[in-house]
Amino acid sequence: MVNSTTKVVALAGGVGGAKLAHGLAQCLPPVNLTVIVNIGDDFDHMGLRICPDLDTVCYTLAGLANPSTGWGRADETWNVFEGVKRLGGPAWFRLGDRDLSTHLERTRRLRQGQSLSRITRDFCQAWGVELTVLPVTDDFTPTWVYTDSGEMPFQEYFVHRQCQPRVVGFRFEGVERSHPAPGVIEALRAAELVVICPSNPWVSIDPILAVPGVRDVITSHPLSLDPIGEEGNVVRKQVVLAVSPIIGGKTVKGPAAKMYTELGIQPSALAVARHYGSVLNGFVLDNVDAVQAEAVQAFGIRTLATNTLMPTSNERHRLAQEALDFGRSLLA
Amino acid sequence: MVNSTTKVVALAGGVGGAKLAHGLAQCLPPVNLTVIVNIGDDFDHMGLRICPDLDTVCYTLAGLANPSTGWGRADETWNVFEGVKRLGGPAWFRLGDRDLSTHLERTRRLRQGQSLSRITRDFCQAWGVELTVLPVTDDFTPTWVYTDSGEMPFQEYFVHRQCQPRVVGFRFEGVERSHPAPGVIEALRAAELVVICPSNPWVSIDPILAVPGVRDVITSHPLSLDPIGEEGNVVRKQVVLAVSPIIGGKTVKGPAAKMYTELGIQPSALAVARHYGSVLNGFVLDNVDAVQAEAVQAFGIRTLATNTLMPTSNERHRLAQEALDFGRSLLA
Repeated sequence: MVNSTTKVVALAGGVGGAKLAHGLAQCLPPVNLTVIVNIGDDFDHMGLRICPDLDTVCYTLAGLANPSTGWGRADETWNVFEGVKRLGGPAWFRLGDRDLSTHLERTRRLRQGQSLSRITRDFCQAWGVELTVLPVTDDFTPTWVYTDSGEMPFQEYFVHRQCQPRVVGFRFEGVERSHPAPGVIEALRAAELVVICPSNPWVSIDPILAVPGVRDVITSHPLSLDPIGEEGNVVRKQVVLAVSPIIGGKTVKGPAAKMYTELGIQPSALAVARHYGSVLNGFVLDNVDAVQAEAVQAFGIRTLATNTLMPTSNERHRLAQEALDFGRSLLA
Repeated sequence: MVNSTTKVVALAGGVGGAKLAHGLAQCLPPVNLTVIVNIGDDFDHMGLRICPDLDTVCYTLAGLANPSTGWGRADETWNVFEGVKRLGGPAWFRLGDRDLSTHLERTRRLRQGQSLSRITRDFCQAWGVELTVLPVTDDFTPTWVYTDSGEMPFQEYFVHRQCQPRVVGFRFEGVERSHPAPGVIEALRAAELVVICPSNPWVSIDPILAVPGVRDVITSHPLSLDPIGEEGNVVRKQVVLAVSPIIGGKTVKGPAAKMYTELGIQPSALAVARHYGSVLNGFVLDNVDAVQAEAVQAFGIRTLATNTLMPTSNERHRLAQEALDFGRSLLA
């Protein structure tokens, strides 16, 4: 039963993931919520390690995020960036001053040999984030995008080329040799409910699931195959549910729908459910896609149709609570 | 004769050097003024190469300097620094946002293999500085300060320890293997007048003179030993004059006087003139030190006593013009 004592893990990419994580944080005590974040879009820019998804999640949870964009910092200034531009430096990636402090201090600590997960823990503490935020790995496993204009690093594709090249595939460099960050497997093993946030399946969630051990620890505890409860006194159940990032064939933000199309798959909530396949016990899709629920259920995945847009903090809270209640119903 | 066609080179450290260089820039066409700047106090901080004297000189010449401090940027903001402090990062060196753009872009270019002199040229162009500003060398020759608390990098002594340790000596790491930056020797050779700005003799000017070739090219053309003019049609003369940074036994800014005392030398304009010794033909000292002029002259160095304080732009202009006129009188 999902209540305040239930352990929940959320898997999150950037803006959509951060919003639902923030909603979950409003429903659960910090000790019972762990957010595991994609680091595949991390990159080095001007000598600084930049972790866009991790920062978006942390800023959002800390109340430091820009409320109008959902990413970047509130009350941001751009004096460094303007100065760099004046000197003829790279202008394709906008670095805000407050945001830059994160990259600068993170890079300093990484160079000292500190791990990304330890740095993230310290930063969350400094920012007043009480729940646990974990990069999925302390290793650097940058996402490369294969396109009709050649292979390119994710940020080159995403920011510099504005997602215009046609996608052919993805590669998570070095992920096969990466290790889950300390606490990742433990949190997933302890979780009764794993929530895959409405993030990009290709470049936000797949890089999380690709870290050795992560997909296994989730799929080894599916509800239907639970080997523990059968004998009696310890009932160990885990529900994995995803919230569709695709609504009416489109995404609120980002290139997920465009990617599905370019990869020859019609973008839809159903396509997302198929994408995760046997990992899922449950799937939350938008009311506008309710007609697809039956097709999802045909895969043995239970569904909840609701309003999945989260334009306000209240809406984040509402959707998170509905997802938790849905998960509880599957655990029951 | 020093007029608008005379080639002048100024040797400069930070604030005092920048002020006189700015005054000289008001007297001379850009093509006839080269400022050669100390890089001994350069250091790496948070992964960024910081060149305090070079930046102070360039900001001042560009009109970008903070008018109240004489260093740093005007209209500065501190959002990066405040953010770093909140994260528990190093707070001993204050990095302004606008200033940081210089360090960030410079470091990016250095990592690409560009030389400091080329970067400085590009930055000056971007900032609208028309005269030539040259780091004395493209090599990294950091100043170390020997103190009663041990040996420490200059910025550790200067900023972090606020010049409190008692100085025993100095070391310019690797300077013996360094090379003058392109243009340095050429500018010094072509100069009819070399002005040593009122900068710290120990840690601003000595590191310039220590770069192999620099001291030699200056002292090989002293007025009294000029070997060229004797035969007739080409008269090649060079006057080297210094402006005392010590006024009434004290400095306007910085630890020069304290250093003289700790090294067992009573700080005075005379001590500065002795410090440079045979390099000099002329010496500008403050009216309050006029009594020392005779003792300086005893070394064969001509003197000018005047008001050497430069609290305003007009005063910089005035002192620069007086120094130029004094140099002209020695060349005549």
